Amino acid sequence: MKRMEEKILAEGVVMPNGVLKVGSFLNQQIDTRFLVEVGEEIARLFKDSGATKIFTVEASGIALAVVAGIAMDLPVVFAKKNRQLNVNVETYSSMVYSFTHGADTKIVVSKEYIKPGEKLLLVDDFLAHGSALNGLIAIAEDAGAEVVGCCVAIEKSYQNGGDNLRARGYRVESLAIIDQLVETDILFK
Amino acid sequence: MKRMEEKILAEGVVMPNGVLKVGSFLNQQIDTRFLVEVGEEIARLFKDSGATKIFTVEASGIALAVVAGIAMDLPVVFAKKNRQLNVNVETYSSMVYSFTHGADTKIVVSKEYIKPGEKLLLVDDFLAHGSALNGLIAIAEDAGAEVVGCCVAIEKSYQNGGDNLRARGYRVESLAIIDQLVETDILFK
Repeated sequence: MKRMEEKILAEGVVMPNGVLKVGSFLNQQIDTRFLVEVGEEIARLFKDSGATKIFTVEASGIALAVVAGIAMDLPVVFAKKNRQLNVNVETYSSMVYSFTHGADTKIVVSKEYIKPGEKLLLVDDFLAHGSALNGLIAIAEDAGAEVVGCCVAIEKSYQNGGDNLRARGYRVESLAIIDQLVETDILFK
Repeated sequence: MKRMEEKILAEGVVMPNGVLKVGSFLNQQIDTRFLVEVGEEIARLFKDSGATKIFTVEASGIALAVVAGIAMDLPVVFAKKNRQLNVNVETYSSMVYSFTHGADTKIVVSKEYIKPGEKLLLVDDFLAHGSALNGLIAIAEDAGAEVVGCCVAIEKSYQNGGDNLRARGYRVESLAIIDQLVETDILFK
């Protein structure tokens, strides 16, 4: 998606620790007009996927999932992080390692919202090592749901999470694929 | 908003601890078609407010803030919870006590995204004791921004957070106001 690359080049900042900061338009601050375009692009890519639900993880996946859900007229479910859900609620969970934060996070979703046979489109903001998507896939498998595709705003191809998922047979679409972050420069694939 | 009351009556569940669970349509799972209506209702209520930005806190405020932002053509900013932002980023923060979780949470936002003179519309899913909105207001004051209004999906009037804010002069609009949760019954105001 050309517009995603343009936004990253115009507003993205490469931090000294190799983190790409897109807080001005994608998380922390959200450019809603741009986000609507992103939702429409996700809908275009996955219109024939047969998805029945969008599945993401809080917090920065939610905005993307919502615009995708609006464009595709599908409900959204998001897994919660490190939280007790209400008592007496049965849950699926998996562990996700965050390289940014250097810690494991447990993600949890109520069994009510992911049903066997459901066709899930996974959506997230970043795909680097693939931890978050792998955590969502583990929950989908546990629930007996099918993952019909994964769509992320920004993939860092040099961290291999995307290619590992593709090698396992998943359809992974990234709206921008970053090949290299050179000091404070960004090179697309 | 009649539709919000109908949704709560149809799908809301009162938990034994007095928590109203609306996970099937408002958080955890999101009914995107309904959410678009909610965004339009927020836009209708605050069309003359002069708001220049929507301000919320992760995670369950994000979906509402995004649809309000789309309907009002405004950017959204969300405060993050208990998290280090990138190094070298200057932040505003405040403490929010969660009665549901029985713990204090620090909410943080980069100074880049809340500027002096900005007119903020605060959006959140629940208003009970008002802790989250008070935390957002504290950040707005710190930043020299103006709060032009607060809009929540569901207010629990018996916990007084809304009335305390109104007494301080804030315009607070709630799409449904719950007067009482009686065992497993819900009574609107």
